[in-house]
Amino acid sequence: MYAFSKAVNSMHSEDVKQLMKQASGKNLISFAGGMPNNDLFPVEQIDELYNSLSPEIKKLCFQYGPTSGYPPLVKSLESYLEKKGLIIGDNKILITTGSLQAISIITQEFVNEGDIILTENPCFVGALTVFETFGAEIHSIPIDKHGINIEALKSKIESLDRKPKFLYVTPNYHNPAGIIYSPERKKELLETLAGTGIILIEDDAYSDLYFNEEEKSLTKAMKSNGVQDVEIIYTGSFSKILGPGFRLGYMLSSEEIFEKAETVKQALDACTSSFMQILANEFLVQNKLEPYLTFLRSEYLERKDLLQQYLKTYMPEEVTWNEPKGGFYVWLKLPSHIKSTEIFNESVSRGVVFVTGRTFDPASEKDDRLRLSFSNMPKDQIEKGVIILSEAIKKVLQNSKMVLS
Amino acid sequence: MYAFSKAVNSMHSEDVKQLMKQASGKNLISFAGGMPNNDLFPVEQIDELYNSLSPEIKKLCFQYGPTSGYPPLVKSLESYLEKKGLIIGDNKILITTGSLQAISIITQEFVNEGDIILTENPCFVGALTVFETFGAEIHSIPIDKHGINIEALKSKIESLDRKPKFLYVTPNYHNPAGIIYSPERKKELLETLAGTGIILIEDDAYSDLYFNEEEKSLTKAMKSNGVQDVEIIYTGSFSKILGPGFRLGYMLSSEEIFEKAETVKQALDACTSSFMQILANEFLVQNKLEPYLTFLRSEYLERKDLLQQYLKTYMPEEVTWNEPKGGFYVWLKLPSHIKSTEIFNESVSRGVVFVTGRTFDPASEKDDRLRLSFSNMPKDQIEKGVIILSEAIKKVLQNSKMVLS
Repeated sequence: MYAFSKAVNSMHSEDVKQLMKQASGKNLISFAGGMPNNDLFPVEQIDELYNSLSPEIKKLCFQYGPTSGYPPLVKSLESYLEKKGLIIGDNKILITTGSLQAISIITQEFVNEGDIILTENPCFVGALTVFETFGAEIHSIPIDKHGINIEALKSKIESLDRKPKFLYVTPNYHNPAGIIYSPERKKELLETLAGTGIILIEDDAYSDLYFNEEEKSLTKAMKSNGVQDVEIIYTGSFSKILGPGFRLGYMLSSEEIFEKAETVKQALDACTSSFMQILANEFLVQNKLEPYLTFLRSEYLERKDLLQQYLKTYMPEEVTWNEPKGGFYVWLKLPSHIKSTEIFNESVSRGVVFVTGRTFDPASEKDDRLRLSFSNMPKDQIEKGVIILSEAIKKVLQNSKMVLS
Repeated sequence: MYAFSKAVNSMHSEDVKQLMKQASGKNLISFAGGMPNNDLFPVEQIDELYNSLSPEIKKLCFQYGPTSGYPPLVKSLESYLEKKGLIIGDNKILITTGSLQAISIITQEFVNEGDIILTENPCFVGALTVFETFGAEIHSIPIDKHGINIEALKSKIESLDRKPKFLYVTPNYHNPAGIIYSPERKKELLETLAGTGIILIEDDAYSDLYFNEEEKSLTKAMKSNGVQDVEIIYTGSFSKILGPGFRLGYMLSSEEIFEKAETVKQALDACTSSFMQILANEFLVQNKLEPYLTFLRSEYLERKDLLQQYLKTYMPEEVTWNEPKGGFYVWLKLPSHIKSTEIFNESVSRGVVFVTGRTFDPASEKDDRLRLSFSNMPKDQIEKGVIILSEAIKKVLQNSKMVLS
């Protein structure tokens, strides 16, 4: 691989390893894991589905399938996406081995060593790992509570001597920032990109996990707008609506982009597990998804509410945060002179872990935030976790005051 | 991706698409598919295993796992490989999403655009697709019935102005040639590579599928020899001993190679499906593999014997072939003035498909062979298939004689 052998080791690759370790730490209270808790998976539903498969379909589970995906799943996904307001039209779906593989395929399709790509800051660390591994030059644009900062984006594009290959964004229940883009910001973003030739990658792993039915419309994808001046590749995942262990994702793109992506996928793993695709298809076809989502939404809402309540009760007033309207994350803001990494060191020794802010900064510098994930947190541990974390923060704040005075 | 965007379209990528189509052609008798027949999969055994999983393990099926692989499966694989004579020692196993992903990872780890790699001729077409997609300059070395031609290999290495990054071989029940390397040839190969710094990739997808227990020792891996002067990366697959639909493979390599490979894998799909890894692990741990292999060996032996018998009965005398001692393939040799592609055109119109010889030539030229796979062929169709194929061959031979006279 041209990029890999030349690139310096990906810092974010180390961060991800660290993250996995933290998330699975046995005796720790972990706000680190950006995944569902083991107790939330639809185990019984899948049991039932698996045992109801006909012998002929079961045999297909063991066999190769087309590189583009198991055709019945492609069809079910089309319906699923159309219900979300996406217009399939001439676009095509490629099933991928997790949505990270979709990001990887897109990167390999468009990015040569040293090419520029744009990301949000903060940015999903898994994507950063991919971009770094394949040697992209990453330029990041700050986000606020309504989405990417349009003025900063415009200035960035103007200041570059080469056209970025794409802009990667996660507009719905952002990882790590927890925000959702406002409709106005989405519109401004599309207007800004129109005519620039910069592809928009719209990564949408969390849109089904809104807390309030009335706010569902806010999750509508930018790719829903039909034909427009911006080439959009939409990526989605089964990791949050079925389980990351399935390694199932997909991308929806123009036929031209799809065809090259299919060729890249053929050279990566030939096809995605038929077994996993068939179970996921049955999950959709047998209408198991909606009831499961209803269950998940209420579970995550409850966890989010508990976390909010305890944060309000225990956090020192110097710490602020957003209240997410869906997804997995709360993004705490520290006073600017305090580093998240300092808090981490204090907190881990007391038995609580989370992910430091700089993990999500492409430059691995900006460190005044910390990500708390409530998705993987047992409800009865949230209060204890917040108490310990707030004590760790208070300790670091106190130390900093002593230094300052 | 540097290589992909610059490379001409991979011819072999198109071949693979064609191959998949042929293999699954509904009303065709297909000798094309290099996969087990749907009726041979261990469906009942997996049913039993799945339903015997504890609730805690089932939950793990849905969750992320380490990039390197589900630790119990890594352990089971170590035992499995040690039983085959491999010495794990300081080597490490990386679980991959099919063994094609292992080949892809190794290529991305070592090959920059334009770097030289060596393959056999003929060569497994899936690997050729990977090598071409990532922009390798492929040089191929002929094989005979005992393995790679050592003199040709030496001449090739001497003639090159740059050191090849690796040599890719499939010594056991070669795809497509059906041969197994002799112990002498393996020894000569290792002696030839010793000290050259050329890595050897030993792809071993078929070694469990010998027809004669007494010949099992011939399948012993070159990597079994312990520490030696040649760096060997050994790759294996569950596709032939469980099912390709699981997308499960692995690579065994030095720790240094493993660590970089793990980083590449993290940027490809984060980890392989936990669900598939857990089922495969139970298959090994609960000793389901050996009885299943005994069943497979007898099934494939029976198909091979039938194919041999009908080839002897129906083929014109100008056509010759090897009798394989394991695996999936018979590699027919045509008179040199006849092209496999001509036979294909004649044969497909009569309802029989196979894979043309040039599909396996990195240069897509050499076309005096054709691959018959018996693994995916229902026993009761073999005779009819051979009759039709031999008629097609006779027709082409007759036409060529008319042209010559």
